Amino acid sequence: MRVSATLPDSELPRQWYNLAADIPHALLPPLAPDGSVLKPEQLSALFPETLIEQEASSQRWIDIPEEVLEILARWRPTPLVRARNFERLLNTPARIYYKNESVSPAGSHKPNTAVPQAYYNKLAGTTRLTTETGAGQWGSALSFASAQFGLECQVFMVRSSYDKKPYRKVMMQTWGASCVPSPSPHTRAGRKILEAQPDSPGSLGIAISEAVEAALEDSSGKTHYALGSVLNHVMLHQTIIGLEAKRQLALFGEKSPDTIVACVGGGSNFAGLSFPFIKEKIDGANIDIIPVEPASCPSMTRGLYAYDFGDTAGMTPLLPMYTLGHNFMPSPNHAGGLRYHGMAPLVSAAAKQGLLRPQSISQVECFSAAVQFARSEGIIVAPETSHAVAQVIREAVRAREERREKVILFGLSGHGLLDLQGYAEYFSGDIANTPLSEEELDSSLASLPKVGPAL
Amino acid sequence: MRVSATLPDSELPRQWYNLAADIPHALLPPLAPDGSVLKPEQLSALFPETLIEQEASSQRWIDIPEEVLEILARWRPTPLVRARNFERLLNTPARIYYKNESVSPAGSHKPNTAVPQAYYNKLAGTTRLTTETGAGQWGSALSFASAQFGLECQVFMVRSSYDKKPYRKVMMQTWGASCVPSPSPHTRAGRKILEAQPDSPGSLGIAISEAVEAALEDSSGKTHYALGSVLNHVMLHQTIIGLEAKRQLALFGEKSPDTIVACVGGGSNFAGLSFPFIKEKIDGANIDIIPVEPASCPSMTRGLYAYDFGDTAGMTPLLPMYTLGHNFMPSPNHAGGLRYHGMAPLVSAAAKQGLLRPQSISQVECFSAAVQFARSEGIIVAPETSHAVAQVIREAVRAREERREKVILFGLSGHGLLDLQGYAEYFSGDIANTPLSEEELDSSLASLPKVGPAL
Repeated sequence: MRVSATLPDSELPRQWYNLAADIPHALLPPLAPDGSVLKPEQLSALFPETLIEQEASSQRWIDIPEEVLEILARWRPTPLVRARNFERLLNTPARIYYKNESVSPAGSHKPNTAVPQAYYNKLAGTTRLTTETGAGQWGSALSFASAQFGLECQVFMVRSSYDKKPYRKVMMQTWGASCVPSPSPHTRAGRKILEAQPDSPGSLGIAISEAVEAALEDSSGKTHYALGSVLNHVMLHQTIIGLEAKRQLALFGEKSPDTIVACVGGGSNFAGLSFPFIKEKIDGANIDIIPVEPASCPSMTRGLYAYDFGDTAGMTPLLPMYTLGHNFMPSPNHAGGLRYHGMAPLVSAAAKQGLLRPQSISQVECFSAAVQFARSEGIIVAPETSHAVAQVIREAVRAREERREKVILFGLSGHGLLDLQGYAEYFSGDIANTPLSEEELDSSLASLPKVGPAL
Repeated sequence: MRVSATLPDSELPRQWYNLAADIPHALLPPLAPDGSVLKPEQLSALFPETLIEQEASSQRWIDIPEEVLEILARWRPTPLVRARNFERLLNTPARIYYKNESVSPAGSHKPNTAVPQAYYNKLAGTTRLTTETGAGQWGSALSFASAQFGLECQVFMVRSSYDKKPYRKVMMQTWGASCVPSPSPHTRAGRKILEAQPDSPGSLGIAISEAVEAALEDSSGKTHYALGSVLNHVMLHQTIIGLEAKRQLALFGEKSPDTIVACVGGGSNFAGLSFPFIKEKIDGANIDIIPVEPASCPSMTRGLYAYDFGDTAGMTPLLPMYTLGHNFMPSPNHAGGLRYHGMAPLVSAAAKQGLLRPQSISQVECFSAAVQFARSEGIIVAPETSHAVAQVIREAVRAREERREKVILFGLSGHGLLDLQGYAEYFSGDIANTPLSEEELDSSLASLPKVGPAL
């Protein structure tokens, strides 16, 4: 009985897939703060030219550089595993597969884009990268990738995560990066927040403001900014996940999955697994594609589709996306990587165009699901990933009730070995659900900028 | 340029290799405490019959059960990676390969034996397993494996590690196991130590005494003990590592490696990688095979080859092995998994018969090596593994000086993501070398039992 499909390294994908080439209604452009359409060169203070080209590209397939493949091939293709023990536990007729991205050196899918971003920056003469991180997965991944190319790396980490996970900082330090809690006194954006709220737990939006400011203030042009999610080029780099998964499912003798599940924060993990399958859906396949977000940060299930800033201070371009408003301050729940007010424009467009079925789940159900998964399949997943696991249980139980064999594919985006404090609090009963009230939501949505067309 | 060899899952080894079949001078038997040769049935209070048979077997190849393969295949075959970035850093003509066991759910090679041990116990009607753990790698692995088969699991964890690594306990708890610091008040052996030294940091020898006692005191016969290293059947189960590595090296176009390096505590990681190659060496191949131990716990480089107990309280049979004396109390250095007074009889016999070249290294050099490896290859290794990395650097530098192309294969036994406190102390300069003095060594060796033949 086959439980794992090892893809020969000769089958490692050599090109990324760009959903912008196939999405039925063309992607809306980003806007400058004054509401005019952003010119690509307006991004050149932040990103190297190749990434800006990828950001605006509508080419379907884009070559992966050999130097990038040489690094990714240390752990890719990642395993695609049939979760037979989990199926037995759930007593379901569904066949459940997970794509295990936790085997990377940083423990998540994030190196898939950190490595090419560091590579293109190195080629362009960049010597230093700045970035933000929520749970720490992205900051770790960029620290790792920067070390591969001899780049300095400065990470602004959301304070609530920084305080809960001191070892993330040590991890980044081991790779030679520096990590500071955000909001920090190092930037104007950080100081402004600290003046208003000295004990601010921070947010991804604030940390992005700080990292962008830190990159822009170096006038030599040798410091660039790197973003771990949201942008089109990040989604692009992650598609290697889904491209591998398609080939591996075929090795199991499966055609298209019936259901695809992945957690979403900024959207990159979800996009990586699902975009190659969204192409199939556009071409006529019947696939239920489910992004899962925390009930405490429900941008796709309760937010608006509108132009909004990517960060809190309003330093980034305006992006067309599902958003809770850039001033949104999520409750400090454990899935730090999902605490983001917006959603990748490509993922948002796919949802707006009816290709997705977004769901939200509260964290107690997620931790319970993660423990069931750990005890049956063995992997202790990241709190972010636990949202996908909880949705898979819902789908597997429904398959049992409907007595329907179906194929569920889900993204195991990362392990939770740096997040065990969350598990400890779950076991001691110290984890509560923190749903978002209507008042908080309305107040946050009132911060939406008044520029650009209504969507 | 190939950096990784993915072995198709159809090539997953289906049999373990037993070095006892080929070692030139037959293995000496274990002895009962009175000096008589131990009868296999004297082990039946601790282990199920199949494991006792494997312990005494001289059959060369032993089938791996399908149920075990079904679990191992979730992450096996593990990657064999050419460390090209590390080679560049060291400017060496050597080609360096590492076998990456850190991708298992527990983060190390330990599940390779935890899974079959839990399986054979389940078959035999066992409902509960007891064990000890040093750094926590083995306790985590047995907790994981027990959950796969619905067994209860109780882990006695060496207190110095327990205090330094609180999250190991959470990890075991997530898999449904219980974990207590050792020495504990739960056993006579633990209470005796605590009376003499209430703040005892513990040792693997003490924790083994406690776990053995906890298994023996359940007269229903449904509680068994599981050992994560030292014994022949454990070495056997780990050989899947080296068997895969041989096939993967061939995919790179390499013949035998010139040098094999792995860290040793009880011996299982080293045995797993090297035994299939020791077979080649016995058959005439010229391979330099190097087990590396901490300078603070140098059983092979400074201990005696003698019959000694496996535990501190003298509850286990006497084993023929390199030992520092079963009363040896290693300094609380960070490589908790290597803090064991003895060495696996099979590894000891291979060393005694001239097949190995044991080395010892102090921990500051090891952490420095681990940081160089993390920044070039990206994996943050366990402190245990860092001993192998440090030796590889020595060998690679020698290859450069001798201008000699050679092939170095080393065992990356586990990641250090639960050991980041050690890295933090290294960065802050709080790590010191703690070599063993002649006086301490003499005093500890004086505890050797006076039974059995001189070796």
